[in-house]
Amino acid sequence: MQVGKKIWAIAEGYIPGWSHGPAPVLTSHEAACILNAGDKEANISLTIYFADRPPAGPYRIQVAAERTLHLRFNDLSDPEKIPVETPYSSLLISDVPVVIQFTRLDSRQEANALVTTIAYAE
Amino acid sequence: MQVGKKIWAIAEGYIPGWSHGPAPVLTSHEAACILNAGDKEANISLTIYFADRPPAGPYRIQVAAERTLHLRFNDLSDPEKIPVETPYSSLLISDVPVVIQFTRLDSRQEANALVTTIAYAE
Amino acid sequence: MQVGKKIWAIAEGYIPGWSHGPAPVLTSHEAACILNAGDKEANISLTIYFADRPPAGPYRIQVAAERTLHLRFNDLSDPEKIPVETPYSSLLISDVPVVIQFTRLDSRQEANALVTTIAYAE
Amino acid sequence: MQVGKKIWAIAEGYIPGWSHGPAPVLTSHEAACILNAGDKEANISLTIYFADRPPAGPYRIQVAAERTLHLRFNDLSDPEKIPVETPYSSLLISDVPVVIQFTRLDSRQEANALVTTIAYAE
Repeated sequence: MQVGKKIWAIAEGYIPGWSHGPAPVLTSHEAACILNAGDKEANISLTIYFADRPPAGPYRIQVAAERTLHLRFNDLSDPEKIPVETPYSSLLISDVPVVIQFTRLDSRQEANALVTTIAYAE
Repeated sequence: MQVGKKIWAIAEGYIPGWSHGPAPVLTSHEAACILNAGDKEANISLTIYFADRPPAGPYRIQVAAERTLHLRFNDLSDPEKIPVETPYSSLLISDVPVVIQFTRLDSRQEANALVTTIAYAE
Repeated sequence: MQVGKKIWAIAEGYIPGWSHGPAPVLTSHEAACILNAGDKEANISLTIYFADRPPAGPYRIQVAAERTLHLRFNDLSDPEKIPVETPYSSLLISDVPVVIQFTRLDSRQEANALVTTIAYAE
Repeated sequence: MQVGKKIWAIAEGYIPGWSHGPAPVLTSHEAACILNAGDKEANISLTIYFADRPPAGPYRIQVAAERTLHLRFNDLSDPEKIPVETPYSSLLISDVPVVIQFTRLDSRQEANALVTTIAYAE
């Protein structure tokens, strides 16, 4: 079933610079969780915006039909790594409707802090 | 009063693999909180999407008229249990308008981490 | 400036049964933060929905023009208190447009857990 | 690429009164993360609403084309500082479409608590 939108934005982004607890499950990270409930593969173009330099990307992401992808921003490397401890925003443009949710695990202190929000869609 | 939408998606899903603190209130879990404010029972079909296998479900859920249901994903077993420590997404389709919010309690470390977000609706 | 919607729903609700840390700022609580940016007082009717009993309310709430109200559900008592450790949902209907955000401070463990989400509007 | 809306509201606001952990990264704070993905500078007018006094502002904020701004409310001082431990709401009006997300880091206890939500847009 085709559900969602093609344009998604996440205004908040910040990969914590250190972690506390067993890796990799409790490593500080940010993720865009992408649901493609439709019957066609989703081809997504991701652009990263910064405070004081031109945008990075596009990063190319595929999500198969009827599958989900929990994309860790920490893992992106082509065309470049996203620096830690640096505020950024992300814009994702898909060729088919998808649903995107933002999550961060911050394990800089002894207790993990976890946030999530539905992204902005249009 | 009839309020809400019939199609809801939660892109993020992950049941933590362990817990810390008194059970069951502080057991790590994920929940879809469903409000049916209308005067007809809601019949909801839930499908679970994974990264690398076909979807599970449909799971059948009822929410009585003018009632709320805090559905714990941990408790689902028919047609199959949802595996822990596995990323997933969920799609809920109701025959009457409802409002759905996503919540996770992660008590893997000494302090509990709690997240919530309104789900995506259309 | 008039901004917002007249119908808001919060599907998730649960007042933790105990607290940890200095009261009242770190007392476990749930709040509906209501912004009335318009130039007329907002008269809001709040109904609370439960899993297994008829709804409670309506509770009557006023928010003055160009003011905000951080309404703690713990403080409601007329027509009845909201029980702790009991899942509920809330529906708020205003006579003028407002913006509503949901927040919970859970201080049951040594570290406080905080969640927030924009409510569902239509 | 022009994405977003011109009117954004954040109903919840509260700058914690103390912090725990290394400053400034773990200082308690609230932020509005603003993405301007378009090719024109965004000029934003911010008004702060309180429970029992007239609104403060407008505060004037610029976000350059194709840049992001993680605006800390703690840092605002013109026309006046935002008091700590005081509930408030914020309304942001931009001359071009932007996307705004709300974040708070609460480090009053030993473990940091982090929340985020997409703001209300129209």
